[in-house]
Amino acid sequence: MAFIKVTPSPLRTLVVLALILSHARADPDPLQDYCIADIRNQSPYSVNGAPCINPNSACISHFTTSALSRRGNTKANQFGFNVTLTNTANLPGLNTMGLTMARIDMAGNGLVPPHSHPRASEVTICLEGVIGVGFVDTSYRLFTQILRPGESFVFPKGLIHYLYNYDLKNPALAISGLSSQNPGAQIASVAAFMSKPWIPDEVLGKAFQITGQDIAKIRKNLGG
Amino acid sequence: MAFIKVTPSPLRTLVVLALILSHARADPDPLQDYCIADIRNQSPYSVNGAPCINPNSACISHFTTSALSRRGNTKANQFGFNVTLTNTANLPGLNTMGLTMARIDMAGNGLVPPHSHPRASEVTICLEGVIGVGFVDTSYRLFTQILRPGESFVFPKGLIHYLYNYDLKNPALAISGLSSQNPGAQIASVAAFMSKPWIPDEVLGKAFQITGQDIAKIRKNLGG
Amino acid sequence: MAFIKVTPSPLRTLVVLALILSHARADPDPLQDYCIADIRNQSPYSVNGAPCINPNSACISHFTTSALSRRGNTKANQFGFNVTLTNTANLPGLNTMGLTMARIDMAGNGLVPPHSHPRASEVTICLEGVIGVGFVDTSYRLFTQILRPGESFVFPKGLIHYLYNYDLKNPALAISGLSSQNPGAQIASVAAFMSKPWIPDEVLGKAFQITGQDIAKIRKNLGG
Amino acid sequence: MAFIKVTPSPLRTLVVLALILSHARADPDPLQDYCIADIRNQSPYSVNGAPCINPNSACISHFTTSALSRRGNTKANQFGFNVTLTNTANLPGLNTMGLTMARIDMAGNGLVPPHSHPRASEVTICLEGVIGVGFVDTSYRLFTQILRPGESFVFPKGLIHYLYNYDLKNPALAISGLSSQNPGAQIASVAAFMSKPWIPDEVLGKAFQITGQDIAKIRKNLGG
Amino acid sequence: MAFIKVTPSPLRTLVVLALILSHARADPDPLQDYCIADIRNQSPYSVNGAPCINPNSACISHFTTSALSRRGNTKANQFGFNVTLTNTANLPGLNTMGLTMARIDMAGNGLVPPHSHPRASEVTICLEGVIGVGFVDTSYRLFTQILRPGESFVFPKGLIHYLYNYDLKNPALAISGLSSQNPGAQIASVAAFMSKPWIPDEVLGKAFQITGQDIAKIRKNLGG
Amino acid sequence: MAFIKVTPSPLRTLVVLALILSHARADPDPLQDYCIADIRNQSPYSVNGAPCINPNSACISHFTTSALSRRGNTKANQFGFNVTLTNTANLPGLNTMGLTMARIDMAGNGLVPPHSHPRASEVTICLEGVIGVGFVDTSYRLFTQILRPGESFVFPKGLIHYLYNYDLKNPALAISGLSSQNPGAQIASVAAFMSKPWIPDEVLGKAFQITGQDIAKIRKNLGG
Repeated sequence: MAFIKVTPSPLRTLVVLALILSHARADPDPLQDYCIADIRNQSPYSVNGAPCINPNSACISHFTTSALSRRGNTKANQFGFNVTLTNTANLPGLNTMGLTMARIDMAGNGLVPPHSHPRASEVTICLEGVIGVGFVDTSYRLFTQILRPGESFVFPKGLIHYLYNYDLKNPALAISGLSSQNPGAQIASVAAFMSKPWIPDEVLGKAFQITGQDIAKIRKNLGG
Repeated sequence: MAFIKVTPSPLRTLVVLALILSHARADPDPLQDYCIADIRNQSPYSVNGAPCINPNSACISHFTTSALSRRGNTKANQFGFNVTLTNTANLPGLNTMGLTMARIDMAGNGLVPPHSHPRASEVTICLEGVIGVGFVDTSYRLFTQILRPGESFVFPKGLIHYLYNYDLKNPALAISGLSSQNPGAQIASVAAFMSKPWIPDEVLGKAFQITGQDIAKIRKNLGG
Repeated sequence: MAFIKVTPSPLRTLVVLALILSHARADPDPLQDYCIADIRNQSPYSVNGAPCINPNSACISHFTTSALSRRGNTKANQFGFNVTLTNTANLPGLNTMGLTMARIDMAGNGLVPPHSHPRASEVTICLEGVIGVGFVDTSYRLFTQILRPGESFVFPKGLIHYLYNYDLKNPALAISGLSSQNPGAQIASVAAFMSKPWIPDEVLGKAFQITGQDIAKIRKNLGG
Repeated sequence: MAFIKVTPSPLRTLVVLALILSHARADPDPLQDYCIADIRNQSPYSVNGAPCINPNSACISHFTTSALSRRGNTKANQFGFNVTLTNTANLPGLNTMGLTMARIDMAGNGLVPPHSHPRASEVTICLEGVIGVGFVDTSYRLFTQILRPGESFVFPKGLIHYLYNYDLKNPALAISGLSSQNPGAQIASVAAFMSKPWIPDEVLGKAFQITGQDIAKIRKNLGG
Repeated sequence: MAFIKVTPSPLRTLVVLALILSHARADPDPLQDYCIADIRNQSPYSVNGAPCINPNSACISHFTTSALSRRGNTKANQFGFNVTLTNTANLPGLNTMGLTMARIDMAGNGLVPPHSHPRASEVTICLEGVIGVGFVDTSYRLFTQILRPGESFVFPKGLIHYLYNYDLKNPALAISGLSSQNPGAQIASVAAFMSKPWIPDEVLGKAFQITGQDIAKIRKNLGG
Repeated sequence: MAFIKVTPSPLRTLVVLALILSHARADPDPLQDYCIADIRNQSPYSVNGAPCINPNSACISHFTTSALSRRGNTKANQFGFNVTLTNTANLPGLNTMGLTMARIDMAGNGLVPPHSHPRASEVTICLEGVIGVGFVDTSYRLFTQILRPGESFVFPKGLIHYLYNYDLKNPALAISGLSSQNPGAQIASVAAFMSKPWIPDEVLGKAFQITGQDIAKIRKNLGG
């Protein structure tokens, strides 16, 4: 979930953090006890799945992280959410384990906008607040639910889904497991209107049946 | 690619055909010579991957199809495209083979709108016309190219991509291979604005930074 | 994690619940949008991975569960723990998604005894209390850590690991993601000494270098 | 499909091109958005699947190729065919995508001799001419069909199959998708009689029930 | 390895036994403790991987077999060999385990003719006699070795290989592990010349550069 | 099976050899003809799966080994057994082949103690002696059998199992195939009581329901 962290421009942070995540590697079956990601590795090239350090150099710090312990900054973007993941950078022992965990913070009325994970299914559990969730299948059928603390929901692999905090005031918190160490994410509206460079207006105009002015307005509102 | 075929209402056809496709099964490693999909199977339940007929009943018709031989109807939707796939319904021997083929027809100025395949990578080859293609990665970086006959392009797994016929008059044709027998597809604009039921306005309004009126207009234009 | 739930005899519950879990199916790649487990299925035989209902019959209840919302009964066994999982019985939409979530409750001084998951890696996050965790690799090297709320830890696939509540009075709570919809579990001491039927004394005596009396005492203490 | 390109001696070209292909890497699940093959990589060792460049260095040229745009030279071998593949050398972005595309040119009366792909299933579509195709299953049952333009056929993974241009004068053209980025290929007759070094005569004599003279004649005719 | 057992006509036995084997199912990751093949299953359709019995009905006989204990009849074919496999018919507990074992008996001067396994790699260990082995890679390079008791050899997945007993008088015995529960096999000479129906003469004539008379002679000698 | 070889202290050998094995890499699908492990590789980091040499440098010695030809020393540990595996160190061509072979030697009354393989299923065939085998499933049900020469048995992936030579005097010999090139192994008693460092007494005391004195005695007897 390559989302928003702490810098002023939502798009810039989208890009910065997404880049960080898209550099992480993922998901071969675990083929030895552990294959601890070599995050200091200065190799000129990478592999599909992170290179690992010598197993003899494994130490306890490689298997533990407090990355998910801090509430994320939900003010860094106009959607009012923050997603933090364990990944091979903050938890090197995660490499080759075939899953990751995420904490999802939402401000009052915050939204994790409709997005998809190209490489993972997700199971989310609501810990705080009242969260509206939904996904759309390839038949364009929408499945929605309201989650209260302790309730879980499944987002099938690769399908567009969202989480929404219906409480206007209080924040919401969810923990998710994802079936890849590097699930990746694309927010549909950001991918469509805020890519660098931009998708040509004739393509977006036809796809969304809107005018160039509409497109310009959306881009402006999204911080482009 | 659960797209448009031949009926008047684009959305209805989207839904109808997507349903057909989403019933197809896919992609276990081929575990016997062939596992011919039992398309007459009336079993009350299905499996992850189609059940197969007795191998002794295999015959040549299970391994061949003319489904891709006919030019698709590009007038059935306002985007001006048609995608036809080999699948376990029209080519039962495809079951468990781990790939499928698609023919993509575009009318003059036709568009295959930005969409993603939740379960497949794609390699497309342009056979006729001049086709603009592009995909957005999880860093929201756009990669675009103009394809002329014989030129090929890669769309990585699960990422939003599009194909556009820059020629206002003449049709375009492309053949694609996809790395799943049931890749599935979601057109971003249709999934966001035309799902059944609709995604709540507050979610779309916030995600696209638009008003309820904008949403209503988009839905109307998309045929909702 | 085929562990202990609510009935008086720890072993009986071990067996009963483990049976329930070992009937669940798991982990083919998701090959359609969803393959909702048919839990009413009375078929005389099963498949590797649960059979699914007709996708047209999918409804929202298949994708949501409150199974993890209730604190587990940690008094049902002498170890003082309870593990509850999402599985294809309480969350049919989980089928083929390639992961599951678990809530781990520990009483004061409670222990999740050394165990292994034959089919999954695990990432656990401590939500309440102070939890000592450890795993042993195939070189018989032990990695241990103390987790406080928000801290996460990786247990590599198939390796023996444990969780221990160092607080004598207060309960502890952790949430885990596992990389299989049916990870399975074997508690080393229970598998060795409480199997039905029993592993021959000469085998256990030699393996643990103990006498038949020692074995009998361990079995008696474990509730056999 | 490690076949014939443009040099005079069919065998030499078989070997040369096969070597090129057998150096290509293949088929881990795509584990990041893309893992562009580093074809300039001078590393003394390789990995199972090509090493990739830094994702930041990705550019559009990595995802596009005109390798399949040119008609292949079908005169370079006595069989009268030419196969050209997209691979990690001519299309670096193909790495980890799990499929490849091939163009198959056949001269009048040309033959793609009986061969197998050790790592892929294949779906072929006839674009020009009239092509006779067939495969043999492990029960030694032959399935054959005549393909006309637009008709498709499935060749199951690892099974011996062939394509034959029944038109004595006009060339034929087919496009195939294969379920591996490096399917590999072995022509049965070439593998049996033209390996380097040769398979001992007593082995071939017994396997084909022929004499040493027969073997020598076949080798001579195959250009050995 | 769908080879020869005990009936007079080598081809008939090839076909009969190959059919038996090609009905066996194979190789999903083991997704529960065990998925015992239901060999009494009369279901009108099958699945990719055998359906299993209710785990409660598992009994010790499902996990054990003496199928490999008997020396095979090496006189049933003119090649002088016999291969016996564990499979889901003689060892139902093998289903979903991802491997199988084979015993290879060769008469004096016996040959396991050049063949390939479409779905498995193989590691063989010589137990009796002196066995010449070899495989051809996709570059048509031959690797050969002489194995004496206790020596092992690797045959890579899908590549043509053979085993030959150099001792004119004494039998030879080898045990192999294969990386699929249903590896399948095609003897190159039998697939080319003895398929049912026959591959057209013009195809074989061109592929092997031989005449129709040569083809007829080979077929006659192979028992066609 | 990271077990005992030839040095006096059983534990030291356990650790030493296990380290050797845990350095081996394993099990991506074979993605080229062969990916010969570079065992001379001095790279500061490794990958999930061994790096390979240039395929041009492949030679016959990479595909053959006599590692399993010698009877193992069953006196190096108090259990009276020895397991020798083919691995990427003694058989570099095994890399990426997805399986390995093992020879299991047991002295009279020797035991391969209850252990599990985190990454493999196993099929074993008894070659000499009378071997009692058993495994425990995740329902804590024990399946046992007596194997005589030629009889085979399946040990499902990741489950605790043992082999025991019931003959007090004569040695026993078995050959196993395992579904990973690096299955790994953990002996339950050694992992529980002989890890380095030790698992805390309160954990073991509670798990096995024994006292600190019992633990000390077991450790002493196991050679700690």
